[in-house]
Amino acid sequence: MNKPFPDAVTVREVGLRDGLQSVARTLPTELKLLWLRAAHAAGLREIEVSSFVPARLLPQLADTAALVAQARQLPGLVTSVLVPNLKGAQAALDSGADLMLLPLSASHAHSLANLRKTPDEVVAEIARIRALRDASSSRCLIEVGMSTAFGCTIQGRVEEAEVLRLLQAALDAGADRVGLADTVGYADPLQVGRLFRQAFELVGDRLACGHFHDTRGLGLANVFAAWQAGVRRFDATNGGIGGCPHAPGASGNVATEDVAYLFASMGVATGLDFDALMALRRNVAQWLEGETLHGAIWRAGLPKTLTMRNAA
Amino acid sequence: MNKPFPDAVTVREVGLRDGLQSVARTLPTELKLLWLRAAHAAGLREIEVSSFVPARLLPQLADTAALVAQARQLPGLVTSVLVPNLKGAQAALDSGADLMLLPLSASHAHSLANLRKTPDEVVAEIARIRALRDASSSRCLIEVGMSTAFGCTIQGRVEEAEVLRLLQAALDAGADRVGLADTVGYADPLQVGRLFRQAFELVGDRLACGHFHDTRGLGLANVFAAWQAGVRRFDATNGGIGGCPHAPGASGNVATEDVAYLFASMGVATGLDFDALMALRRNVAQWLEGETLHGAIWRAGLPKTLTMRNAA
Repeated sequence: MNKPFPDAVTVREVGLRDGLQSVARTLPTELKLLWLRAAHAAGLREIEVSSFVPARLLPQLADTAALVAQARQLPGLVTSVLVPNLKGAQAALDSGADLMLLPLSASHAHSLANLRKTPDEVVAEIARIRALRDASSSRCLIEVGMSTAFGCTIQGRVEEAEVLRLLQAALDAGADRVGLADTVGYADPLQVGRLFRQAFELVGDRLACGHFHDTRGLGLANVFAAWQAGVRRFDATNGGIGGCPHAPGASGNVATEDVAYLFASMGVATGLDFDALMALRRNVAQWLEGETLHGAIWRAGLPKTLTMRNAA
Repeated sequence: MNKPFPDAVTVREVGLRDGLQSVARTLPTELKLLWLRAAHAAGLREIEVSSFVPARLLPQLADTAALVAQARQLPGLVTSVLVPNLKGAQAALDSGADLMLLPLSASHAHSLANLRKTPDEVVAEIARIRALRDASSSRCLIEVGMSTAFGCTIQGRVEEAEVLRLLQAALDAGADRVGLADTVGYADPLQVGRLFRQAFELVGDRLACGHFHDTRGLGLANVFAAWQAGVRRFDATNGGIGGCPHAPGASGNVATEDVAYLFASMGVATGLDFDALMALRRNVAQWLEGETLHGAIWRAGLPKTLTMRNAA
């Protein structure tokens, strides 16, 4: 365990992007704004509001600029957007987002399927995006999310050495920080602990995010293992919605309310208001009627021994 | 971590007892026998087949002696039965079961509600059961399962010092081994690691079982944390059925197939055949039509990177 004492954990809500991109319907912008404001009111201080991808590919996420503009009005909020390429990065810079998340697949096959580029071509694009950012007046952070870091539904096994090589390459190309993502729910807690520990040794605190899916039930065990390895920032989606369109069978990020409960149960502060997260979940269920939500804590609720003060 | 290298783990299937006791209907003995034989064929070498409780309290479990008789025919199987008192212990000794599991609630309030005895009165009964066993020709093992060791829906908080005191008292009274159970799904992984480590320090390898419920989604994270602390034997139920009639809101032991997957994913041998567990799950779903099964791995199936050899 890198850090034996439970310092605070940050949860980034990514439902508006990683969640909604896997939902066929287009949620009206006004409902997304309700979601955004409710998430902020529940204590979330990092929210991935959308993605600057071509509207023909993901019409669900075509209102990104409007969402960023509104998110910037919320006090203390770090507004993230996903950016797949240089064009998207320009849009992110123009929008005034605080952070752009660039996906980089550790799996060669997934990279070709998802971005039609090899991982090293994506690394070259990261360098161009860094140059673009530096040439602008923007202070937008560049975070690289290493997808399929624990395995891939297309390629199968992904070598840890390749993940570590690409982490270093992303930083060398100009990323400010990096994270590791189990895009398709292949990770196990031993592997998570091992890979995060190696990555911390390699890049130190520039490793700044754990992104887990609960596809096979190990989502929270993996969050716990990553936390043991020293991770203090996690992605999650309210109601556990999400998945990856290029990773068949994958469904369900870890649920924000489950992650909030996990850390509250361990006495680790997240700043999150559990009741507010549950209220948002009920709204999300209504807005996405017919979609399957996931997660666990919503069924039984908090233990009577866990006060809301602990959970807040 | 007590044991850095992944030696084998034993899973005890407790669905026929902890599962069925919380299901209103009575499963015919012939179906229970199909379940028993299928579990054995799937590689399970410890099975809790039923409970020697009065039939008026749990009519679902009235065929215990017949089940034990059949279980004894299965090669290499350790046959467990739950026993609430001296009369049940006599029945267990008469039946030829290999192991009797005696529940001892760490929560005073739960103990009164569940067994109508204080924890120390139960300890006294354990001593009488040990004397009964020693006076017989039986070599039936006496295992004490410490329920509500991580909290209680009735009493709320349960002090770790009280859990440790009762563990020692149970062993002093003549139990051969003890285990810790999160009967109502209140445990968190930090607490699990802490309490199991303390218990190992106190009683060594006579601490021999972790029993977790997934009521609030932390079941597998808790199994992982207990494994890190050195636990190598876990209870689970096929399909995640189960609960406790005296712990409102509690539902769902960790699923046998999920626990099998967790350990297989980490490269830890369990001797379990994943496909056979899934086939049994499908049968259990049919036999208990209308009951809600739980668990996670059944939805997405194994990752393509996990071969059956690893899972076996």
